[in-house]
Amino acid sequence: MHTKNILGFDVPDFIEGFGDVEHYSGVWNKLKKENIGETIISPPVKSRVAHTSKMKNSLKEAIDACNPHDGMTVTFHHHLRGGDYIVEQTIRYLAEVGIKDITLASSSLTSAHECLVPFVKDGTITRIFSSGIRDELGKAISEGHMKNPVVIHSHGGRARAIKTGRIKIDLAVVAASAADCEGNCTGSFGPSAFGSIGYAMIDVMYADKVVVVTDNLVDFPCIPPSIRQHNVDHVVKVETIGDPSKIASGTTRITKSPMDLRIAEMAADAIEQSGVFREGYSFQVGAGGASLAVAKFMRDKMKAQEIKGSFMIGGITSYCVDMLNEGLFNALFDVQSFDAAVSTSVHGNTNHVEISSDQYAGPYNCGCMTNKLDVVVLGALEVDTDFNVNVITGADGVIRGASGGHSDTAAGAKLTVVVCPSFRGRLPMIKKRVQNVVTPGESIDLIVTERGICVNPNNKNLEVKLKEAGLNIVDIDKLREEVDKITGVPVEPKFTNKIVGVIEYRDGSVIDVIRAVDTED
Amino acid sequence: MHTKNILGFDVPDFIEGFGDVEHYSGVWNKLKKENIGETIISPPVKSRVAHTSKMKNSLKEAIDACNPHDGMTVTFHHHLRGGDYIVEQTIRYLAEVGIKDITLASSSLTSAHECLVPFVKDGTITRIFSSGIRDELGKAISEGHMKNPVVIHSHGGRARAIKTGRIKIDLAVVAASAADCEGNCTGSFGPSAFGSIGYAMIDVMYADKVVVVTDNLVDFPCIPPSIRQHNVDHVVKVETIGDPSKIASGTTRITKSPMDLRIAEMAADAIEQSGVFREGYSFQVGAGGASLAVAKFMRDKMKAQEIKGSFMIGGITSYCVDMLNEGLFNALFDVQSFDAAVSTSVHGNTNHVEISSDQYAGPYNCGCMTNKLDVVVLGALEVDTDFNVNVITGADGVIRGASGGHSDTAAGAKLTVVVCPSFRGRLPMIKKRVQNVVTPGESIDLIVTERGICVNPNNKNLEVKLKEAGLNIVDIDKLREEVDKITGVPVEPKFTNKIVGVIEYRDGSVIDVIRAVDTED
Repeated sequence: MHTKNILGFDVPDFIEGFGDVEHYSGVWNKLKKENIGETIISPPVKSRVAHTSKMKNSLKEAIDACNPHDGMTVTFHHHLRGGDYIVEQTIRYLAEVGIKDITLASSSLTSAHECLVPFVKDGTITRIFSSGIRDELGKAISEGHMKNPVVIHSHGGRARAIKTGRIKIDLAVVAASAADCEGNCTGSFGPSAFGSIGYAMIDVMYADKVVVVTDNLVDFPCIPPSIRQHNVDHVVKVETIGDPSKIASGTTRITKSPMDLRIAEMAADAIEQSGVFREGYSFQVGAGGASLAVAKFMRDKMKAQEIKGSFMIGGITSYCVDMLNEGLFNALFDVQSFDAAVSTSVHGNTNHVEISSDQYAGPYNCGCMTNKLDVVVLGALEVDTDFNVNVITGADGVIRGASGGHSDTAAGAKLTVVVCPSFRGRLPMIKKRVQNVVTPGESIDLIVTERGICVNPNNKNLEVKLKEAGLNIVDIDKLREEVDKITGVPVEPKFTNKIVGVIEYRDGSVIDVIRAVDTED
Repeated sequence: MHTKNILGFDVPDFIEGFGDVEHYSGVWNKLKKENIGETIISPPVKSRVAHTSKMKNSLKEAIDACNPHDGMTVTFHHHLRGGDYIVEQTIRYLAEVGIKDITLASSSLTSAHECLVPFVKDGTITRIFSSGIRDELGKAISEGHMKNPVVIHSHGGRARAIKTGRIKIDLAVVAASAADCEGNCTGSFGPSAFGSIGYAMIDVMYADKVVVVTDNLVDFPCIPPSIRQHNVDHVVKVETIGDPSKIASGTTRITKSPMDLRIAEMAADAIEQSGVFREGYSFQVGAGGASLAVAKFMRDKMKAQEIKGSFMIGGITSYCVDMLNEGLFNALFDVQSFDAAVSTSVHGNTNHVEISSDQYAGPYNCGCMTNKLDVVVLGALEVDTDFNVNVITGADGVIRGASGGHSDTAAGAKLTVVVCPSFRGRLPMIKKRVQNVVTPGESIDLIVTERGICVNPNNKNLEVKLKEAGLNIVDIDKLREEVDKITGVPVEPKFTNKIVGVIEYRDGSVIDVIRAVDTED
């Protein structure tokens, strides 16, 4: 039976290979309840006799020591990004020894994971939880080659899912750029340094078995111990945990695209006039294009007006580090580092604080950092006139993006700004209805395009302020019509009825489903 | 029914007000089992809507917000030591609003807690879990004025008890010398700085409600966030959390007592000759008398022989900090800081790492730091010819000491050295049988007195080494007889059958009981 959820998206009450659906009920409706109606699982009980070794001779030996079995759940972090070798090596070995029906729960999956396609097709992997899926793997899933639908979660949602046992971890494999023989480890230094190891911090607390894999075994003790020894079962030294050139290279640069810069400048003007830009404000921007460029304009405004912010969070770029070092912010809270320059700062600056994904954005705790956020600037693959945002499927209907901290920060921030060109190529980015919703319009305040700023009608005060400031405010329906006239209304992709992906909101409810693309044409 | 346990101590199978007894079975027998037969409890599920305040106007208001009720369990850390104001204020308020039958579980209780005697006598507090109890409170309990027996645990044992729900925390009150409005907090700076906040780290993970109390509310964010906001429900600013002059004053000094220095020098010689004193060794000493003085002699030996150690753990004194700063050790791991000079180091030196009591000594995890220890030097109130150590009851039978990390480190260290004068006043310190056992002889290698070094017969190799090195090795039975001749055999205190204290070993088994002193004479 199919139902329209409260956002008007077609989500059934039961999904084959997923189970009963708890429907999305609004940004805070579930979380503001006295009793959420869920519990946290028990962390496993462990013990160890003194002066026994945790070292294993190879990743295979470490995996063998963790009782690999059919139906097991294996987790990874994606701090190594496109350079990761560890997911592939682990899955390949599990397949080699005949393990089937694996649930793969990586904090995200990147271009490094196209290699998983055969394992998805042959039933080695039958479930995936991830923030994002891309390239050939996304295509294979969207074409229906996987047994059960993948579950797309936000970074905060993943912390929740691990705590509630929705993702019940048998084995957590943690790649580290430096580790000691007891498993104290970090990503903040070493040849394969990747910065914060924040996504793995929650895995090691709840996993039945934890294996730390490093290519840089250092003398005990490894400092900083971003992950601590009492949460680590086995340690293994490998030749390399990944391709350093694809892990984190150089310094993030601000876009030179005139379109992106124009959008960014408009967004920065809107933030300046919104009322939240003031002494002690907090700020998050994404690492890409127009989003990062907003930081450049805010930096200029902060200097010009001598405004000092409190903190930045999130994916941290060298641009954020520069702003910390210039004294524009007091602190950075870092769940994921986006370039090599950041690792040095994580390692050496006490005001650059590594945080877990639970602290960053977890909905099931006493208050995550996104809850404290004043302004966030986010990107979009497409938006709609209800301000809903899609960051997971492309115009062709294929899974190609990531949920990330999008819905977490949008929910938490006082001012949520989406920056997005009004069209890309011949494709309009503003739709009547997004193909898939990841972040509900309720949590979006502004959509900034090169053709003007759309203000969510649920934030009338903001609209008044921005109009008074003389900014170019446009009605989103009119903007959509205008853009459609330029691009023409595109042919929408065709889908079958098969559900290949389930998009969970950060509170664990289902906000949308992804259907298989119809390849029969 | 009374039973002798495997150490020969008279421990019943059932204790009124405590329950069924799991008898002590040896240092590692329980922990080396594949399945310990216990589970960890679920941490509570919590949630919070963005941009809501955690600030309360007073400690009373904060407590009121935590659903105080009869039979509740309230926990504290004892980092404020003799200067603590927070335990008293909390219990006084709970009594004021009529709460009865409280379980008080402080990581330890000090001279600051004599004020609790009336609350113990009137049934406000009916159970106590603590590492130590002293002065009038110890006397009142030993005289039978408390409803149920107190449970004495080690620091590692407390971490275990909280994880298993043996101590199921309704309210954790965490005093901090600096905190922000979200509950990020530390003990490492501020007017009431006390250094590491390690004991509270486990409480905040499992407590239903967590209140952070500070006299130094700082701008968000408080760095370092030794305890993190997502584990804190309420924050309250009070005038003062304690008397700074009794919290941590000055710098720990080495004893000038010739007797203590003589014992310490002999202990250091024994360590030097034991085989564990080598490049990269790890070391822990207590903060008092002969124990700390051993550090002085080891420091000299390390310099003379150009030996560099790996790490020191435990209660950290400024003496440890000096050795870190001199490059004699690579790192300090600090669960508790013993003097004011240490706070600065915790705050500023990344090689001075704050650790939780679970990481320090917890038996139910993947490997605590005491498991990695080469040498520990410990004190004793008395020892016996089976090498059992009493650190909890005085010669008069009254509770006056603390279990601390004694049994944890003794179990973990490759070489456990107890330093102890052979008599104090007219009282012999070496008995046929200690009045109460906290640390089993199985885990003690050496007892060093001013009259010579006793080697545990279970460590024959060590005896050979030390004899070959020409050290003064004495037989413990002969030493006892020799001392008895000097002091005379003292009159033992009389006890009733009432059990007023239960001494848990770090694994949760009962190693001994404390009986009420007989005051009828």
